[in-house]
Amino acid sequence: MRIRTHVGLGLDGFIATPDGLPAWDAMPTFGPGSHGNAEFLEECDAIVMGRTSFDQGFEDWLANWPWPGKPVYVLTSRSLPENAAAAGVVASAGGPAGLVQQLRQAGLARDAQLLGDAKTIQAFLELGALDELGVVVLPVLLGKGIPLFAIEPTVFSPEAWAASLASPGEAAPGTLLRLDRHRAFPDGAIELVYRKGA
Amino acid sequence: MRIRTHVGLGLDGFIATPDGLPAWDAMPTFGPGSHGNAEFLEECDAIVMGRTSFDQGFEDWLANWPWPGKPVYVLTSRSLPENAAAAGVVASAGGPAGLVQQLRQAGLARDAQLLGDAKTIQAFLELGALDELGVVVLPVLLGKGIPLFAIEPTVFSPEAWAASLASPGEAAPGTLLRLDRHRAFPDGAIELVYRKGA
Repeated sequence: MRIRTHVGLGLDGFIATPDGLPAWDAMPTFGPGSHGNAEFLEECDAIVMGRTSFDQGFEDWLANWPWPGKPVYVLTSRSLPENAAAAGVVASAGGPAGLVQQLRQAGLARDAQLLGDAKTIQAFLELGALDELGVVVLPVLLGKGIPLFAIEPTVFSPEAWAASLASPGEAAPGTLLRLDRHRAFPDGAIELVYRKGA
Repeated sequence: MRIRTHVGLGLDGFIATPDGLPAWDAMPTFGPGSHGNAEFLEECDAIVMGRTSFDQGFEDWLANWPWPGKPVYVLTSRSLPENAAAAGVVASAGGPAGLVQQLRQAGLARDAQLLGDAKTIQAFLELGALDELGVVVLPVLLGKGIPLFAIEPTVFSPEAWAASLASPGEAAPGTLLRLDRHRAFPDGAIELVYRKGA
């Protein structure tokens, strides 16, 4: 069992508009199962999400449940709506680390899809609990919205540059990832899958 | 003559650290001419940059000029240092639109590389004056720094989501790009080249 994402993001890094509309929806070519979503879901036996994603989607999903027969784990410390259990939704109160335990004990034959939201994906990344970070870079610029990563944009500071020149040889400033595979879709979307470990 | 970029950016969208150190430098595999930089430069007869990039790099470059025999156009309304002209540096006071004219009149046989900075690339994009937006997505997360695009990160707002549900069918929220080509490097960096036009 691996925990994996398959999330669409605009080239400027947003997974959703400020309204919460997924970046996928900015693509005229997006539809049910497109961009590898159907085959990805086939490889997964469970869905994982944060409470924000659950609260945003639950009412909509009830009309046509997207994951019949697959348990849906929701990271939350609050109780779920009464009709959630019947749909296969399980509350997971132990945070990302507790959820990983819960998933392992569930004896899933295949993988778990970490759907969102951004903060939840960031928490799994931070913990090193994400086995595969899969993104589909969509050929679209959203300009504003909800970024996938926890980012702090800055502007160029001549003073900071001067200071860095004065102390060369500082440690490399980034966290390296390992690209496992990639593929292009006909509309110019590019799937990039990064795998844990060196 | 086409105006093109070939800029390295971390997967989280930064082209430089807060200090102004290029994202390229976060890659142990980066070196002179690596990641397609040498062949890209061979296809270009001129370099274009904003005043911020010029001021950041000029003193360093003087020691070992990176673009011998190629004019370097700097977008600026202020005068350049006296020793700039001898290195082939030309001030361009008419903004991106004026510079495009200037480049056309220069009768370049090949292309012009728009080097940076981020704000200058954004200005060319905004104007529709960038013929090719080429990026090399580096397998690294910088966390903070200078973003390539003019982005406004937001958080999810349940209120905004509720409002958007109440008025469905809004216009698509993004600007679509056209992927022309892509390639992977052995270290997991991926070059993506988007071309102007439908």
